[in-house]
Amino acid sequence: MKIRVGIIGYGNLGKAVEQELLKNKKFKLVAIFSRRVVTSSYNSLVERFEDYIYYKGKIDLMFMCGGSANDIEPILPEISKYFCTINSFDTHSKLQRLVSEVDKINRASKTVSLSACGWDPGLFSMIRSLMFAISGEYPTTFWGKGISMGHSDAIRKVDGVLDGVQFTVPRKEAVMLAKKNKVNDDIALHNRECFVVCDESKRQSIENQIKNIPNYFKGQPTSVEFVSSAEIAKLKRKMSHKGNIFMPMKLGLSQKASMEFIVKMDSNPAFTAKIMARFALAVINLKNEKRFGAYLPIDISISQLFSIKEREFIVKHLC
Amino acid sequence: MKIRVGIIGYGNLGKAVEQELLKNKKFKLVAIFSRRVVTSSYNSLVERFEDYIYYKGKIDLMFMCGGSANDIEPILPEISKYFCTINSFDTHSKLQRLVSEVDKINRASKTVSLSACGWDPGLFSMIRSLMFAISGEYPTTFWGKGISMGHSDAIRKVDGVLDGVQFTVPRKEAVMLAKKNKVNDDIALHNRECFVVCDESKRQSIENQIKNIPNYFKGQPTSVEFVSSAEIAKLKRKMSHKGNIFMPMKLGLSQKASMEFIVKMDSNPAFTAKIMARFALAVINLKNEKRFGAYLPIDISISQLFSIKEREFIVKHLC
Repeated sequence: MKIRVGIIGYGNLGKAVEQELLKNKKFKLVAIFSRRVVTSSYNSLVERFEDYIYYKGKIDLMFMCGGSANDIEPILPEISKYFCTINSFDTHSKLQRLVSEVDKINRASKTVSLSACGWDPGLFSMIRSLMFAISGEYPTTFWGKGISMGHSDAIRKVDGVLDGVQFTVPRKEAVMLAKKNKVNDDIALHNRECFVVCDESKRQSIENQIKNIPNYFKGQPTSVEFVSSAEIAKLKRKMSHKGNIFMPMKLGLSQKASMEFIVKMDSNPAFTAKIMARFALAVINLKNEKRFGAYLPIDISISQLFSIKEREFIVKHLC
Repeated sequence: MKIRVGIIGYGNLGKAVEQELLKNKKFKLVAIFSRRVVTSSYNSLVERFEDYIYYKGKIDLMFMCGGSANDIEPILPEISKYFCTINSFDTHSKLQRLVSEVDKINRASKTVSLSACGWDPGLFSMIRSLMFAISGEYPTTFWGKGISMGHSDAIRKVDGVLDGVQFTVPRKEAVMLAKKNKVNDDIALHNRECFVVCDESKRQSIENQIKNIPNYFKGQPTSVEFVSSAEIAKLKRKMSHKGNIFMPMKLGLSQKASMEFIVKMDSNPAFTAKIMARFALAVINLKNEKRFGAYLPIDISISQLFSIKEREFIVKHLC
């Protein structure tokens, strides 16, 4: 039986999730919910956001594809009363609180939620935690060059911003230090290059506001460049991204080892969507096992991503 | 309270595990069990192998550090009647059967076993399975250049072999194909370079026997070179190793992504020991939760490697 799913939020990520679900035989996409008036390029049913309530019992799991800052955080507790959910929430400082809050709701409503499950946070959280477990030391993560969906979303929420996009760029000198295990908290790892469309009179104020957004830009080397709508449309088409995790480590007294994980992608939303679709299977597995509650990717064993039959295959061919 | 542990088998891996346990405050090394007459460089208590039976209730977990081929397979079921265990069993074709057999014993005796938990199989099994889950395609693994402990052990078990060591070397042309996602089953990924000490009269027979050891050498490009005891002693000191997993993948219709995991180590046994020591904590966590049975690393969530308090730290700093 197919897993009946919905998508809440129809931006870049929502569209990528739609494409992923339509070609994946394990899912049946029931409806997309949006606050805006949108139409699906694939003729999927689009409903008004608030009508999700009528889909209780008709949808098993909701892909929460809105921005972390203003979309997922306020609505996840409410949606969790009716549906299992998966999201790629990326406001790290608020993650623990959100998960604790939603956990109570999930247990009461017999649903399962999986939060912060994209490539980072998500896949990278798992790899970093595993590296830390083995080494006892802190790995260093570099992102880019590429657009950060979370950071771009944060820019666009600033009052007066007509459009905006943010490129994350690793600083070469920091990469060199990371490979030698010489990074510390005083070293900025990335430059954050923001491109913004706004009314000329608001530029100074908007630049100040962006540079002071906590958790996203404050305290980091951030540049803000003002561009035309045409220029930003072109920039926003650059969906490619990259990420590296470096983990140099000590063995015994004088020996060394290292672990490194690298991802590269032509499309950040498409890669995130692929991860969310697979981990959605684990959410349904957990629900079927009546293990209700709020989870993070580090709580999911790799076996749980597979059915029992698939697991046998995995042990035979990949373990 | 410290976890009381024992080591069965005192070769390269057993010694590395001893060193790792002695510097790790979570463990108390109670005794080492060996079939040979050995002494510990660190003054650990060494007992005869068969005396493990007297340590029931005095040791929580046994690190099984003998070779897969002749040591772990026959004795793991018996040891599992009395103790939780962890091993880095690497005979892939026999893994599923061993785990199924031991699972029954673990459940009956209320113990937990974790098998095939080194860097490969183990860490790499987790990464490969995770990559496969996300991509739906097969990753390619390269090992080396480095000594394979399992393959060297297999050589040394051949009748007439006085000493032996095997270097695994990735074939450059295969690495190029893997990066382009063009590997198939007909392409040999590695050269297997064996170095053997034996009586001159037995060379031809031993070379034939080695090249026909199933699961280890049969059907793979294998060279056998005969060397002196002095030469092999020098070769065996090369403990460094390396491994890469490549996962090129498709996104949408024409887009691409890739994942890659790389490990490098000065000492293969020391790195394996570090992994085993951390995963031993998960074994004890599972036992405390009364989830008795036989596990593989893919069955362990990353959270289970940590205590509840440590998990909070992980969520805050690494997720």
